This record gives sequence, C-alpha cells and structure tokens, in this order.
Amino acid sequence: MKTIKTQVGIIGAGPAGLTLAHWLKKHGIDSVIIEHRSREYVEARVRAGLLEQNTVDILKTLGLADRLVREGHEHHGVYLSFDGERIRVPFGPYTNGRHITIYGQQEVVKDLTDAWITGGGTILFEAPALELADYDTKHPKIYFEQNGQKGVVECDFIAACDGFHGLGRKTLPKNSYKEYSLTYPFSWLGILAHVPPSSDELIYAYHERGFALHSLRSSTVSRLYIQVENDDKVDNWSDDQIWEELSVRLGTPGWNLQSGPIFEKAITPMRSYFIDNMQAGRLFLAGDAAHIVPPTGGKGLNLAIADVKHLVDAFIDYYHNNSTTGLDMYTPTALRRIWRAQDFSNFMTTLLHKQDEHGSFQYRLQRAKFDYIRISDNYAATVAENYVGLPFESFTK
Amino acid sequence: MKTIKTQVGIIGAGPAGLTLAHWLKKHGIDSVIIEHRSREYVEARVRAGLLEQNTVDILKTLGLADRLVREGHEHHGVYLSFDGERIRVPFGPYTNGRHITIYGQQEVVKDLTDAWITGGGTILFEAPALELADYDTKHPKIYFEQNGQKGVVECDFIAACDGFHGLGRKTLPKNSYKEYSLTYPFSWLGILAHVPPSSDELIYAYHERGFALHSLRSSTVSRLYIQVENDDKVDNWSDDQIWEELSVRLGTPGWNLQSGPIFEKAITPMRSYFIDNMQAGRLFLAGDAAHIVPPTGGKGLNLAIADVKHLVDAFIDYYHNNSTTGLDMYTPTALRRIWRAQDFSNFMTTLLHKQDEHGSFQYRLQRAKFDYIRISDNYAATVAENYVGLPFESFTK
Repeated sequence: MKTIKTQVGIIGAGPAGLTLAHWLKKHGIDSVIIEHRSREYVEARVRAGLLEQNTVDILKTLGLADRLVREGHEHHGVYLSFDGERIRVPFGPYTNGRHITIYGQQEVVKDLTDAWITGGGTILFEAPALELADYDTKHPKIYFEQNGQKGVVECDFIAACDGFHGLGRKTLPKNSYKEYSLTYPFSWLGILAHVPPSSDELIYAYHERGFALHSLRSSTVSRLYIQVENDDKVDNWSDDQIWEELSVRLGTPGWNLQSGPIFEKAITPMRSYFIDNMQAGRLFLAGDAAHIVPPTGGKGLNLAIADVKHLVDAFIDYYHNNSTTGLDMYTPTALRRIWRAQDFSNFMTTLLHKQDEHGSFQYRLQRAKFDYIRISDNYAATVAENYVGLPFESFTK
Repeated sequence: MKTIKTQVGIIGAGPAGLTLAHWLKKHGIDSVIIEHRSREYVEARVRAGLLEQNTVDILKTLGLADRLVREGHEHHGVYLSFDGERIRVPFGPYTNGRHITIYGQQEVVKDLTDAWITGGGTILFEAPALELADYDTKHPKIYFEQNGQKGVVECDFIAACDGFHGLGRKTLPKNSYKEYSLTYPFSWLGILAHVPPSSDELIYAYHERGFALHSLRSSTVSRLYIQVENDDKVDNWSDDQIWEELSVRLGTPGWNLQSGPIFEKAITPMRSYFIDNMQAGRLFLAGDAAHIVPPTGGKGLNLAIADVKHLVDAFIDYYHNNSTTGLDMYTPTALRRIWRAQDFSNFMTTLLHKQDEHGSFQYRLQRAKFDYIRISDNYAATVAENYVGLPFESFTK
C-alpha cells in the first residue's frame, strides 16, 4: 500500500484545503492534499466570487494574489433595492477603506493549485478518502484510493476541508456535536449570460415578485439570480421569462437591464447549517465541512478561509511554540465568526426575499429595515462591516 | 344638548391627548379634551415609565417638566444579559449625549392634567365619546355623554387619542386602511414590590428559562417582569417562585437580586399592531389608537408623543400658514417613525425572549446578535440610538 508521510494531511483541494497547505508551507509545516475529484472538475466548479478584504489580504501575504489583483474587480459599495427604490451602501466610510473583490472561486482554486504544484507540493486528484483512522492517537491516518490502488497518508493531524458531503463531518463522533440548521422556503435560479453587466456593483433587490441579484463575472459575462419556489424546475423558465423577471425585480427608474444569451441555468436551494464542534482528537474540520450559509452576502468562501486562519494559528502554536492551546480552542475561536456570518447571511436573506405575503407585518419589518439602512449611518455601517468582513481582531473582544 | 365649540376636539386624556392640548395652546390653538374614565382612574393607570430624550425635550419646551426633572431619573445606559453574561450599552458615546429618563407615565398624566386645569383648560372626565360625526365636512362633531346627559363638541378637527379600544379607529372607514399585526407566543408577568432596585439601570435578560426585566420605579419600589406562557395565570405564581425566577434569569456572577413584598401582579400579552392610515377627512388618530408595540424597549408612550408632534406641526401649518400639506402628509410622516419603532420593538422582543427550544438555530442567531452588540460599536450604536429615540430630523432623509 502506498504510504505518504506528512505533518498535516489535508482532505479537499478547494479554497480551504489549498490555502491551508500554502499557509502551512510558509511556516515550514509539511502537508499533502488528497482530492476526491479531478483537477479539471475542481477548477471548473463555479461557486461564489465575492472575496472579503480579509481573504484578499491572506492571499496577498501568501504571494498568491498576483492574478487576483490583476483581474479581480474591487467594489467599494453595494446597491440594495426595495420595491424599485435603490440605495447604495458605500464601504469605505464605514470600514476604514476596506472593500470586497470580485474574483471567481474557481479562479482562486486554479491559482492556488498551479502555485502548489509548481512549488513541488504534493496533491493527489481523483483520490477519495475512504477512512479517517486513529485521529484520537498521535498517529492519525487517512486511507484513500487512487487509480484502483489503496494508499494511506500518515500524519500528525488531519484537516478535513472536504465540503458539506465530505468524510470529515461523517467521521466526527455523533455525540460530540449538535447540528443547527434552517432550510429556507425558497431557492435561487441562477444564470450565466453573455452580456456586459448593467451595473458597476452588485444589486440585491427585494421585490413583491421576489428577490433578485445582479452579480458580476467579467466585462462580457454576467451572473444573475431570481428567487423561485423550492420545487421549481429550470425547464419551467424560458430565457425571456427570466429576463422579464430580472428586469422587473431589479428595475428602478432611469435604469435598464441589458439582456443576452443565457448559457447556464441552475436552481440552488438555500440553507443555513452549522455544527458546534469542529474537532475530535487530531481531526479538524474547516469550511463547508462544518457549515453552510445561504449565498446572500457571499460569506461561504470567506468563512472557510477564516477557519483556515484559525487552524494555521493553532498549528503554528503547536509546531513552533510547543503549545496545544490554539488547537484546543480552535472550535470556540472559529465559532464566534461562524455565528456572526450565519446571522448576517440570515439577515440579508430574510431582508431581501419575499416570505410572507406582500403586505404582511413581516414585510413591513423588512421595509422598515431597508429604510433604516437609508437613514442611519450606524445601521448602514453594520451592513458594510459584515459585508466586507469584520477584522479578525474584532472577535477577540 | 350641551354644546362645546373649539378648534380641535381631543378624545382621550392620556399622554397623547394632554400633550396635544398643551402644545396647541402654546400656539394659540384652542382645544377641549373629553375622557371616558374618571380623573382618578386615569392618573392611577400604571403604564410605561421610559421617556425618550425627544419626549422629555417636548415636555420641557411646553413648561411641563418641572417635576419630571426633579423626580425622574436620567439613565445613560442599559444592561443586556444573555445566559448570565451581562453587558452595558452606554448611550452617550453613540447618541451625542442623548439619554432616557425614568418617570412613570401616570406621573406625566398627573402633571399635564394639573397644568391643563390650572391653566383654565377644558377637560371632561367620565365623558365617553358616542359618535364621531361629519369628519368628512368642515364641521366635525364629537357626540358624548356625561352624567347621563348628551353633549356635543363642535370643532374644526377631531384628534382621536383614545387608545387601542377607542372610537377613533372604529370610526375610520374600514376600506381606508390595512392592519398589520403580530401576536407573540408569550406574555409578561409584571410585579411591583416594596424593595429598593438592585440595579442603577434597567436590565433586559435572555435566559434559557425565559426573558426577565429589572425595571425601576423609585428608591423604595421596583418593577420587574418575567416571560410566561400566554395561557398562564397570576395565581399559578407564588411570590417566592417569582423571585426565584427573577433571580435566576437576571443573575450574573457577583450580583444579587434583592427581594421584597410584592403588592401588584399582572399578566400582559405582547402584541405588535399598526394600521397604515391614521386619518380620514378631519379625523386624525394618534398613539395607541393607531398602533401597539410590545413593551420591550419602552416605545409605546414615546411613539404616541411623536405622533402628536407631527399632528401639532400639521395644525400649525393649517392655522398659521394656511396650508393643508402637513395634514395631508400626517399619515406617511408618522408612519416612518412607527415602522422604525415597530421594527426596534420586535428586534428587542425577539432578541431577548425564549422562543424556540434553547439550542435551536434561532436561539444561536439571538446569541450571535448579543455577541455582535458586544464587539461592534456600530451595532451597539443602533441599539442605543433606537432606545433613546432617533431625532425627528433623521426621518426627513
């Protein structure tokens, strides 16, 4: 059986696993990554594309942000629309100049994978983890399979960055955590279309016909979403109907939505999920393995990178300072930020989606919150600081 | 039939009606007040005792705040507690020094009634309004009864400050408004006790056993509340049990709740309610006649006084500037602040009451919000600015 020895065995070559590997390397800590899927699959997997300031800063520090800086788009504000009234929340005045960068998650994955391989890092694709063993000893093992052959990663620690359906959470003892979850009574129909964006910044819109989002991808491709029923099907929607809904829901006087050929359509359910324990012995979970947020607000990727930051701090503590405090405190440290992101994602989702009947008390509360953002610098600042991502030091208070 | 002629006929001698009468008088506009109940009843009716800065400023301007200034207690912060962890939100740093004053609503009513009568104002007690007539003409009439005799107030305008069960809202054409309401799945058991307060400022507490509030009344009398089931009865609670619940729910290390003889117990349901139209012809509604908030946050009285401010502005516009714009715009002007107060009252209520099971996703969101108040000046500022009351000019943005 093929045996690989390393300090940290990482499962999953998504943004969390790759960032962890690079960051550990920078501090002289050895790791290998095993990934269930092919390199092509992972690099083509379209996900979020909203990077917090924290995430960009980390990638810059790791020397992995050259293309991101070149091709990404800095956004210094966001548009919120309610029943056709559109306001802009600027970030700078409320966040000491911090902002977000629009750059596709799959581009981050490409950049980090390239740099990892170029730098001589070990990464095994199409190598599903089969079992995480002995994580309650000092010699954990990741059993995997590749090309029909079994193998094992013998390591000091296992980092499960293997997503919501991964082996990491399945391996965590069931009695060691409690699950918290919420399934929303609506989904997103997302499209990619060959059309220049009609806005310089994202537009999140509440409309009596439902939520809509104008996101951005490039100067020739736009990404847009509309709220649909959970049991809706892509086939129920013609391109014309989708553009009509987008145009109405995002509409505001004096503004026109450009339409163009749609080349991808998909429906995504909306879910909030997290567990209150992210570790067992020498097994640690990071990113989607431990939590899911609804996409409103774009926190998923950034929360994964924040987990990685706490995990790296803990490993440095262990390997360089001979202390297990960071590892022991990993879960409560990470949870503080996770709760915040869960609350903000829930806030953005419930603020902007049609839930009760248009005209209900809850609808009026949504409207009241929108108006409050408009009149209160303090409230607008809470939207801005959460959207660009609170500084890590905020959570040490 | 006894006939009284005046410019503005006011129904209800609560804080709204009395403040309106005094304020109009200051601007040379004549009014009379008719009140269903006796003077003794109204002056003994214990209600809220939290006055926003705006409310105090208005009463000062009207020369009605001498005793309030002498006997009221300025509070410059509020305690919030969550599962035994207590934090303080100071007001001054977030509100340019604005604060609240604790002074019983019935004391305000006594002061305003005394001053009104001393100043020669007309007020009829035990005089229920029977019918509001001709409010769609220039000569509205309030038919009432007193000592078995019928009477009529002939006026230019009717101001219905007659509370939630009053004739004002009942008279408003049903097709002219929509109702928005929410009944909460819990109530408050409130007590008055002969015991000095155990805290210098209010304590609002979430606890896994339910909400509790330590309010203040005087140096020898305290007012405290616990969350109970909607179908609970006062008789189900012994004094010892109430003190035990208060002690546990409000408890924090190093602090003791003083107990003492309870001399009043009552259960109050929690409701959010408002209508989106507060006028018809020459009939105008103010205060509880048009909206109810749950008591968490103490907005009820203050919202009534804010309505009165907008109504006075409108009457001044009419009588002194010969313009009906203020009257025409009364509802939308008042609604902006009402929506804000509804949202804040709902926020405070849902933040601090036990709703789902302790340990649910919603509970974790409540905890996340509490932690966010602790770490974010911006979020703490939103609590402070709403609690002390947003300046009127905020709503002109």
